[in-house]
Amino acid sequence: MKRPEAEPRSAFAHFEPLTTRWMDNDIYGHLNNVVYLSLFDTAVNQYLIAAGALDIHAGTVIGLVVETHCNFFDSLAYPQRIDAGLRVGRQGRSSVRYEIGLFAEGVEHCAALGHLIHVYVDRDKRRPVPVLPDEYLLALKGLTL
Amino acid sequence: MKRPEAEPRSAFAHFEPLTTRWMDNDIYGHLNNVVYLSLFDTAVNQYLIAAGALDIHAGTVIGLVVETHCNFFDSLAYPQRIDAGLRVGRQGRSSVRYEIGLFAEGVEHCAALGHLIHVYVDRDKRRPVPVLPDEYLLALKGLTL
Amino acid sequence: MKRPEAEPRSAFAHFEPLTTRWMDNDIYGHLNNVVYLSLFDTAVNQYLIAAGALDIHAGTVIGLVVETHCNFFDSLAYPQRIDAGLRVGRQGRSSVRYEIGLFAEGVEHCAALGHLIHVYVDRDKRRPVPVLPDEYLLALKGLTL
Amino acid sequence: MKRPEAEPRSAFAHFEPLTTRWMDNDIYGHLNNVVYLSLFDTAVNQYLIAAGALDIHAGTVIGLVVETHCNFFDSLAYPQRIDAGLRVGRQGRSSVRYEIGLFAEGVEHCAALGHLIHVYVDRDKRRPVPVLPDEYLLALKGLTL
Repeated sequence: MKRPEAEPRSAFAHFEPLTTRWMDNDIYGHLNNVVYLSLFDTAVNQYLIAAGALDIHAGTVIGLVVETHCNFFDSLAYPQRIDAGLRVGRQGRSSVRYEIGLFAEGVEHCAALGHLIHVYVDRDKRRPVPVLPDEYLLALKGLTL
Repeated sequence: MKRPEAEPRSAFAHFEPLTTRWMDNDIYGHLNNVVYLSLFDTAVNQYLIAAGALDIHAGTVIGLVVETHCNFFDSLAYPQRIDAGLRVGRQGRSSVRYEIGLFAEGVEHCAALGHLIHVYVDRDKRRPVPVLPDEYLLALKGLTL
Repeated sequence: MKRPEAEPRSAFAHFEPLTTRWMDNDIYGHLNNVVYLSLFDTAVNQYLIAAGALDIHAGTVIGLVVETHCNFFDSLAYPQRIDAGLRVGRQGRSSVRYEIGLFAEGVEHCAALGHLIHVYVDRDKRRPVPVLPDEYLLALKGLTL
Repeated sequence: MKRPEAEPRSAFAHFEPLTTRWMDNDIYGHLNNVVYLSLFDTAVNQYLIAAGALDIHAGTVIGLVVETHCNFFDSLAYPQRIDAGLRVGRQGRSSVRYEIGLFAEGVEHCAALGHLIHVYVDRDKRRPVPVLPDEYLLALKGLTL
């Protein structure tokens, strides 16, 4: 299996700017690995909300996370600002694999690269939708290179 | 105004044992101040749920936090285990002031002391209840010295 | 004692823009109370670092939190952007009380108001400094109305 | 590629009991996916500290996370208690792949399964150690089935 490598900004379709927090730094002085994952779902959902696909308060379709993965190449540290690069990796009937690169502000290659797989379900029954709603299909176009 | 002082275990009516996490330690090697507050609402709600007062999924009355306060006397650090001591400080018609002391396992005086004020509201309208439900009144008796 | 009230933006000397995260929203659909406190120490330290006062990796003087307090007036929720307003409340020989208001982007009155008291100590011995270093005195001027 | 499946408790060599927190529950009423990853590094490091391998304050060898992965099968929710099952997946010269299953208290199959790869480095130079220290080798034996 090929070892994952840091990718450049041009490998991503859209960027969400995010801020870091004092408590993100762990005892070794850089962002704890868990925080990277928090930036993943923050960036993905933020894009989906702004695109009009996800309504976390009243929407009938919500995304449940079934898989996450992250490779770490470089340290990030508070108070750095982060750009989260997004692209769609694989799009199924009811699931989407989002690929995310986290970039320190002004840096060309990502410090971490990973993915998050959402299965879209009916909010009440928590069963996968038969097909992605139109507003999701539209939003995902904006994450395609 | 009197300066707050570390209180002994005997000043609290009930204890909830809690574990710490790797990411709780900040760059200075001890629990970040914010984590103490997270242990506050974890301990209070855990007690209320176990006592049958709070049902976070289906209950019609929920507690909204309107004030928090914490004084820090001593460091705590992962992987220490914590005992959160609880008592009722003031009980109003629709609000309760919970006072919490955080103790390192096996230590007699608290490392931090603070409070959290809940106003109990109707879940949908978010308006204060006219009077605390019976199950809350019963639960609060268990936090009275 | 006077009940705290939401203050306008003009009551603060400096603002730090901060982003919220998916996981900040709790089961009731708004920012968990603990997150507000995390924005407090993020904003204060971010200002001190940018002002050249605090060097979290190599500085010999660090700020330890001895007291935090927060009053909550209004809900905030991811994905809202937050402006953290800062001012110096009280400045002692080795301690500073920072007062912080958290504002939803574009809103005139703060959703939460609180404070955080730092005691500045020698990094190794953790003993209070006899007097605040010049770079702190200079930085604090920027937080004075 | 085989789709990952929930494994039983017997597939793990050691268990660390962990508590959940109020703020772990997200708007959908269960533990946010990021929290699972926080339980991963909490459990791994807790074991290494108790086994005498890792000294986070004074040790000269520290573990840096280079990869994390998680598959989610079932919801967990505060205030559930969690058992984190641990085993060594692959042991290199300077790296270890820890495999972790998260179990709701009293439940036989894990709600989530994943891994975390540590590269052990010299604390100051952040260069991989040529060979794992004896205390790590000893500790890892306790995570072998």
